[in-house]
Amino acid sequence: MTSVPFTMRRTVKWGETDPAGIVYTARFLDYTVEAVEAWFTEIVGIDWYRLKAEMGLGSPMAHASLDFRKPLFPAEEFTVEVWVMEVGRAATTFKILGRNLAREICFEGKLVSVIIDAERIKARTMPDDFRARIEAYRQACAALETTPPA
Amino acid sequence: MTSVPFTMRRTVKWGETDPAGIVYTARFLDYTVEAVEAWFTEIVGIDWYRLKAEMGLGSPMAHASLDFRKPLFPAEEFTVEVWVMEVGRAATTFKILGRNLAREICFEGKLVSVIIDAERIKARTMPDDFRARIEAYRQACAALETTPPA
Amino acid sequence: MTSVPFTMRRTVKWGETDPAGIVYTARFLDYTVEAVEAWFTEIVGIDWYRLKAEMGLGSPMAHASLDFRKPLFPAEEFTVEVWVMEVGRAATTFKILGRNLAREICFEGKLVSVIIDAERIKARTMPDDFRARIEAYRQACAALETTPPA
Amino acid sequence: MTSVPFTMRRTVKWGETDPAGIVYTARFLDYTVEAVEAWFTEIVGIDWYRLKAEMGLGSPMAHASLDFRKPLFPAEEFTVEVWVMEVGRAATTFKILGRNLAREICFEGKLVSVIIDAERIKARTMPDDFRARIEAYRQACAALETTPPA
Repeated sequence: MTSVPFTMRRTVKWGETDPAGIVYTARFLDYTVEAVEAWFTEIVGIDWYRLKAEMGLGSPMAHASLDFRKPLFPAEEFTVEVWVMEVGRAATTFKILGRNLAREICFEGKLVSVIIDAERIKARTMPDDFRARIEAYRQACAALETTPPA
Repeated sequence: MTSVPFTMRRTVKWGETDPAGIVYTARFLDYTVEAVEAWFTEIVGIDWYRLKAEMGLGSPMAHASLDFRKPLFPAEEFTVEVWVMEVGRAATTFKILGRNLAREICFEGKLVSVIIDAERIKARTMPDDFRARIEAYRQACAALETTPPA
Repeated sequence: MTSVPFTMRRTVKWGETDPAGIVYTARFLDYTVEAVEAWFTEIVGIDWYRLKAEMGLGSPMAHASLDFRKPLFPAEEFTVEVWVMEVGRAATTFKILGRNLAREICFEGKLVSVIIDAERIKARTMPDDFRARIEAYRQACAALETTPPA
Repeated sequence: MTSVPFTMRRTVKWGETDPAGIVYTARFLDYTVEAVEAWFTEIVGIDWYRLKAEMGLGSPMAHASLDFRKPLFPAEEFTVEVWVMEVGRAATTFKILGRNLAREICFEGKLVSVIIDAERIKARTMPDDFRARIEAYRQACAALETTPPA
């Protein structure tokens, strides 16, 4: 099984940084959503595109928040961890931790995604197998001693 | 004087939207930060680049949050309003409202920016003239009957 | 009628620039394609989203090239001109000129777009009314004394 | 030594694709420049940020061109190959090949980068050790039977 928490490893690209020589604010939401996208493919077992094309579903975000703790610099390596904190009828609540190589938290986020009917763009109960996998992942997160505070 | 709230008018670009045919999640933080950037230039009276080059200061974000209420579609026109809710020693707290042409709120955000010493990347008391302009703007926001809830 | 050449006016955003303090290379293709997108809506009379949703067509690019002449800086105002150089069975060839406020050419590009059947992603003859409008625009470009060299 | 050609492996992200369900035109220039950025760090031995901070140099692009052969879809894996075709006094000419997993060429590009004095934003002769490494890489490319046509 996937190791928990699911962790995306990245290197800051030149084009993601600004004249202050640090990652531009809005790019952190790209990092955060892209980590959840990769998590979804791995844990739920289907990518967002097939989710729409084959199942007529979508997984958009209802909420996003980010706290910026320390800057990230061009060419710096960092990781983005995806923790599941809650699983609801249609919604999944994520905690996201971005760390530099010294393991310091550089940014910290929360995302809430919702399973929708793609055609109607309306929330709906998530499929049972999705819930089973996401709930198993949440429990694996909760079992870790280092689970981040909600 | 600038009309209050400061409002940026935009049209959704094709490249900002995803295969679901709606604006991609992370682009909303671009919209939000770009609105505050334009607000800063107009209200504080200096753009972020000259702020760094001429004054050795920066105005990065410490926090961002977004609630997604209704989707925006390619080629759709929308507006982004910038409201100032609080002015602190170094920090300014913004409320951001994104509306479609029917004036429905499509997204709603909060940003907290901090004036920093650009070299040391450390918060510092904002210059008095910045505070005066931002505080005047905040009061103009507060005076409106339609001020959004904090 | 639209004045010729169709011209998009922009201001360089902080997030479009890099640690060298100038617009990041890849953003110039965003500027270029976005100018052609806006041109298409205005001249052909339908936006790319309705083009797909209502007509089952698309207008992707087959080719793009860019020459970078002078840097653009954060907060700098510039314009992007869209010239049509050739109209084929399915293809339209554009010349793009990016100028700073001193009217110096900062970047110069060429785009070739192709009308496709959106479902099959295959080129097809463009509708007659599209051709009529694009050809009229091309002639208006050619009639200008200042037409850029092909 | 690095295997030749230097090859970046990627997966198309949801946010890089558009309502046509394929990668958005402008993102291909991001892919192309990011591949050259990674190549530079590995082959020249210094990243673009340290290049500026420690050596006072830059490596911006003077030219970019792209031909789009086949679409890339969300979640599709692909590779970007970086070939060096020419090394001049200040300039390096790259051929870029983007391939899907079936090894079909999806996009093909050319980039010309120039070593500049970062402060003056003017071209200058590249350092000898840069040239030695880039020229060795070019020869390794040329020695391959499968070298792409210039």
